[in-house]
Amino acid sequence: MAGSTFGERLKVTTFGESHGTAVGVIVDGVTPGVELDESYLQVQMDRRKPGQSSVTTPRKEEDKVTVLSGLYEGRTTGTPLCLLIGNRDSRPSAYNDIQEAFRPGHADYSYMAKYGLRDHRGGGRSSGRETAARVAAGAVARKLLEARGVSITAYTVEAAGIRCVRFVESAIEANPVRACDPEAAIRMAERIEAIAAQGDSCGGVVECRIRGAAPGLGEPVFDKLDAELAKAMLSIGAVKGIEFGEGFAAAGMLGSEHNDPMNAQGFLSNHSGGILGGISTGEEILFRVAVKPTSSISVPQPTVGTDGQERVIQTRGRHDPCICPRIVPVVEAMACLVLEDHYKRQAALRA
Amino acid sequence: MAGSTFGERLKVTTFGESHGTAVGVIVDGVTPGVELDESYLQVQMDRRKPGQSSVTTPRKEEDKVTVLSGLYEGRTTGTPLCLLIGNRDSRPSAYNDIQEAFRPGHADYSYMAKYGLRDHRGGGRSSGRETAARVAAGAVARKLLEARGVSITAYTVEAAGIRCVRFVESAIEANPVRACDPEAAIRMAERIEAIAAQGDSCGGVVECRIRGAAPGLGEPVFDKLDAELAKAMLSIGAVKGIEFGEGFAAAGMLGSEHNDPMNAQGFLSNHSGGILGGISTGEEILFRVAVKPTSSISVPQPTVGTDGQERVIQTRGRHDPCICPRIVPVVEAMACLVLEDHYKRQAALRA
Amino acid sequence: MAGSTFGERLKVTTFGESHGTAVGVIVDGVTPGVELDESYLQVQMDRRKPGQSSVTTPRKEEDKVTVLSGLYEGRTTGTPLCLLIGNRDSRPSAYNDIQEAFRPGHADYSYMAKYGLRDHRGGGRSSGRETAARVAAGAVARKLLEARGVSITAYTVEAAGIRCVRFVESAIEANPVRACDPEAAIRMAERIEAIAAQGDSCGGVVECRIRGAAPGLGEPVFDKLDAELAKAMLSIGAVKGIEFGEGFAAAGMLGSEHNDPMNAQGFLSNHSGGILGGISTGEEILFRVAVKPTSSISVPQPTVGTDGQERVIQTRGRHDPCICPRIVPVVEAMACLVLEDHYKRQAALRA
Amino acid sequence: MAGSTFGERLKVTTFGESHGTAVGVIVDGVTPGVELDESYLQVQMDRRKPGQSSVTTPRKEEDKVTVLSGLYEGRTTGTPLCLLIGNRDSRPSAYNDIQEAFRPGHADYSYMAKYGLRDHRGGGRSSGRETAARVAAGAVARKLLEARGVSITAYTVEAAGIRCVRFVESAIEANPVRACDPEAAIRMAERIEAIAAQGDSCGGVVECRIRGAAPGLGEPVFDKLDAELAKAMLSIGAVKGIEFGEGFAAAGMLGSEHNDPMNAQGFLSNHSGGILGGISTGEEILFRVAVKPTSSISVPQPTVGTDGQERVIQTRGRHDPCICPRIVPVVEAMACLVLEDHYKRQAALRA
Repeated sequence: MAGSTFGERLKVTTFGESHGTAVGVIVDGVTPGVELDESYLQVQMDRRKPGQSSVTTPRKEEDKVTVLSGLYEGRTTGTPLCLLIGNRDSRPSAYNDIQEAFRPGHADYSYMAKYGLRDHRGGGRSSGRETAARVAAGAVARKLLEARGVSITAYTVEAAGIRCVRFVESAIEANPVRACDPEAAIRMAERIEAIAAQGDSCGGVVECRIRGAAPGLGEPVFDKLDAELAKAMLSIGAVKGIEFGEGFAAAGMLGSEHNDPMNAQGFLSNHSGGILGGISTGEEILFRVAVKPTSSISVPQPTVGTDGQERVIQTRGRHDPCICPRIVPVVEAMACLVLEDHYKRQAALRA
Repeated sequence: MAGSTFGERLKVTTFGESHGTAVGVIVDGVTPGVELDESYLQVQMDRRKPGQSSVTTPRKEEDKVTVLSGLYEGRTTGTPLCLLIGNRDSRPSAYNDIQEAFRPGHADYSYMAKYGLRDHRGGGRSSGRETAARVAAGAVARKLLEARGVSITAYTVEAAGIRCVRFVESAIEANPVRACDPEAAIRMAERIEAIAAQGDSCGGVVECRIRGAAPGLGEPVFDKLDAELAKAMLSIGAVKGIEFGEGFAAAGMLGSEHNDPMNAQGFLSNHSGGILGGISTGEEILFRVAVKPTSSISVPQPTVGTDGQERVIQTRGRHDPCICPRIVPVVEAMACLVLEDHYKRQAALRA
Repeated sequence: MAGSTFGERLKVTTFGESHGTAVGVIVDGVTPGVELDESYLQVQMDRRKPGQSSVTTPRKEEDKVTVLSGLYEGRTTGTPLCLLIGNRDSRPSAYNDIQEAFRPGHADYSYMAKYGLRDHRGGGRSSGRETAARVAAGAVARKLLEARGVSITAYTVEAAGIRCVRFVESAIEANPVRACDPEAAIRMAERIEAIAAQGDSCGGVVECRIRGAAPGLGEPVFDKLDAELAKAMLSIGAVKGIEFGEGFAAAGMLGSEHNDPMNAQGFLSNHSGGILGGISTGEEILFRVAVKPTSSISVPQPTVGTDGQERVIQTRGRHDPCICPRIVPVVEAMACLVLEDHYKRQAALRA
Repeated sequence: MAGSTFGERLKVTTFGESHGTAVGVIVDGVTPGVELDESYLQVQMDRRKPGQSSVTTPRKEEDKVTVLSGLYEGRTTGTPLCLLIGNRDSRPSAYNDIQEAFRPGHADYSYMAKYGLRDHRGGGRSSGRETAARVAAGAVARKLLEARGVSITAYTVEAAGIRCVRFVESAIEANPVRACDPEAAIRMAERIEAIAAQGDSCGGVVECRIRGAAPGLGEPVFDKLDAELAKAMLSIGAVKGIEFGEGFAAAGMLGSEHNDPMNAQGFLSNHSGGILGGISTGEEILFRVAVKPTSSISVPQPTVGTDGQERVIQTRGRHDPCICPRIVPVVEAMACLVLEDHYKRQAALRA
């Protein structure tokens, strides 16, 4: 493969498997002279790490990030940052029983087809563990975006079949589901715990708002801002779809309803989700991603082994009954990487 | 900008504006020695060209494709193909009245913010006209995929609020909406014509099926097959969302419902849409894209001019009341480009 | 192949074969709003075109460049420029006799090995004809560099075994060899004509000076400015080597001789050729390229045919006895593309 | 910057500074299932590491390479290899005295111009230390090339003004200069030691032979095999030039002398250095690089400080009087990376 690199002018390359020594990332193209330290990065790492609440995996990972290069006397040097996150709590033993079987919903079968071999330990490279490196890299981009006045916030709008009916930003980090509706959050948590108790899992929808982005970001015709965000989001394992602004609801609208009129003060609505023709308009950029139910469940499932023999599998690992709350910081991280990269690309165009 | 190039090993670069001399594309990395001629490409061009029916724009474009390079004695040479499509029916006069105003739903405002200037003639580079070049390039990829036993078919599943309830493949090219349900197609056409008569437009949903794709296509972690397809589809102007397999419906499912079990014969279901961990499973690859209502309508809309003055605009061009039928070949073309590129990338990995 | 694209933020993609309909190039990433017209580009085209003097091929090509896209009302729009150059004087007949034989010094054999087939007409894609597209693209970059105060000048310093002993800039375009020494130029021309009369060819050395380049251009560690210039120059068919500053002579120097000391006014010497650690210093960037003798000669040479049979070949085309004067504008064009691309990359880094 | 990544299908990204915690590299796109272990990589690391002999720096670095990812049960998995090399013997103290001055011949001044700040400790990212990561990555490529029957050997042909007059392959690794002529090697070592005793340094020329490379490698027109090798070699700090086959000597030859004739057995000579039209012919690929004298010398040199004040500098670090013997494995490593990448690119083209 050679798909471990993302971005053009802010370029990130991740490495590492779920049960190897470590995961990490190189961030190249960082603006020099920017104040940065590990504690700033750790804030985001802590939002993604396992074991945060009753609705996430009890697995324990400290997810301590270390900067191996690119920093000098507390500032970025413009040379590549290498961010390393050690793997602490790896229990390959827990995976031995599934060593020779393809877990339904996992990449086991497709990876075997691609590589002709398999690192069965918790999915190896296909594990969500790899996203820890993305969150670290995204935090670097977030730091650069802060100076531009851009803020990026994601949150759960649906989980376990329950939808948020209001948006209370202050509630997001105050509930274990990271939902934007405090009342819905309570019912989501209850439902998720009940599903977990049955050894099952559930999905949800995560929404992301990007505020303060300059107009003019995105590159016609293939590197449209929404196209790049779509690639970034679908590169997250559990994400099965994305929609911008009205999204799929636009299919049922009339042009006269969907078009955003303007007056001298600006746009009068934002059905487009802040992007027209693939270029940011300066309005809030709004998109939602569909999150599938976690593939790892302890309900017995029919499958086959690498030997082609049919068997019933029951994964005993300690998994997230609903991945939404832990995907929120990953969605933000990827959005940060896309935005900062496009700020740099726009600067190159107009230079 | 520098976003006019797509693909890594099969690399396409498009150029041209809606009302310039021509649009075109360079296709680099084509397997040498493959039989190809203009008539094969023209078949796809004719599916996208305007003026095909009562539900598409009456604008006339012959969309004749010419091969300027890369072919010798009826075979590809392995050198870049340059495919040129002249612009015939350009009536800048029809656009003079909107010269100084930003058309709601169009890229006029965002392009002005990006470039600091504007080619107002029908959207210039942001026009759907550019997709003619993609269809030509996609036809080249389709030719390569045919030899691999891969077939790619897209069709309308929803338009003007009407949904298809059955899948009749033979019906698709036999109705003007390119819908997979012949009865629904009739009602769609009637509704679209009625909407057009009011000077308005409507959206829809286009679905795409890729059959015969080998397992193992796609590259962890950022260049997942679904991530690349998502970027390709969102790079089409009118597309506002994409979902794979169950897509957004997966948000409401349990893991035990969504996971695809296997037996010795293979997968017992395909909720994943033929992609696991971003890698093809060998099952049918299935995705849907949300198509927004055409931005160009003749209903009066409030907007502002480049002078900042408020005004009411009424675009008088001859536009598509519903772009779904003409987006179908574009969706197929982009899917062909992604698939063939990944076949070549997989060959490089395993080489 | 997929090697027809060059550059990251100023991206050029060429197409076309020596005896096809046309050659051309797409230039993507051009700064919007820059005044440009075909006559400006034509000035450079005329410097490269054949039939300029007694020391170049008598072949006649008007090399008229046409802009198909990316210009509107005399200014760049920021969208891709497509520059087209028609092929006029193609005489495949002249090549029929060599149709089945591999011409010594040409890419015939290696292309056959690569592609498994062959477009024998004058080398097809491997022909120097392709550089016409580079010169057109380079002229666009030159226009952007002029606004930055950068000037790029190349000239012959050695040809047919005769070396220039002085640098008279005004003499360069005033002699058919484009030599920087008017007296040497006369002897070079005489020697080249004598060699041509024998049906043979000769090589030379072309030097290039880049003045006014800002310090700080080039990207550690792989995309060093000299590394990118080296790739650009070696991508020119007849070039067999490159050296910067003292170049190969540095091999025989001491550190105390080669290091460039500084005082408050700046560098006291420029042995480095204006590049330290791969980054421009602000001094004049100086490099030389080795140009091999033209491969096409009418002296009989032993070779083999595609049938494996040995034969003697005598190419009868109308060729350049010394390609140096026509390579000069190509060297300048490639240098322009590299410099402008790095200005844009530096803008992205510091954005 | 974003220049820390090299290659298209075999993609390497390096990180780290001379006096930071570590240097390292991610190698992405490695063929899965290949047997590999750290001891294989260490063999090449040991050839580059300092302190090998009287003609290299006495600095001590163990240069122990550790594989952090991409290996499982002794085989490559196809996922990114992360190779880490710790920095042991860093003595920033030795650099304090030059903290505020620009060292002649070093990248200090140009880096300051690029980044607006400076990591003065031994050059930071611009230090030759970074090449340790390249050698580790190159060893991975070498392993893949061995299976293809490709061997790559570099050696010193000139140092301190002394040239090799014969090629004895067995002698190369048996003398401290890695020269191909054992007698010349002795005189080179003596001369280098004498120069070192004066606190000065000297340059040289390193030649590289690639045997067993298939014909057809390299991509027209910009990614020619010689163009890519040139970029790779000029990306090595001390390299100031490169020439292929006859190289600069070709400038003085006639076409009838330089062209390589063929008979039924193949080429009768190899003036081209195994590359025609940028594509390998199957003959031995031969090139030479010019190596400048080490910039770090203890001879007093006039320079200026970051404060603009003139001063005399005398670098007291422990440096290589001639870098040729330690550049040999770096040249080989970069050549390995280029070759293996092009094997994969060719596989993609013909797939």
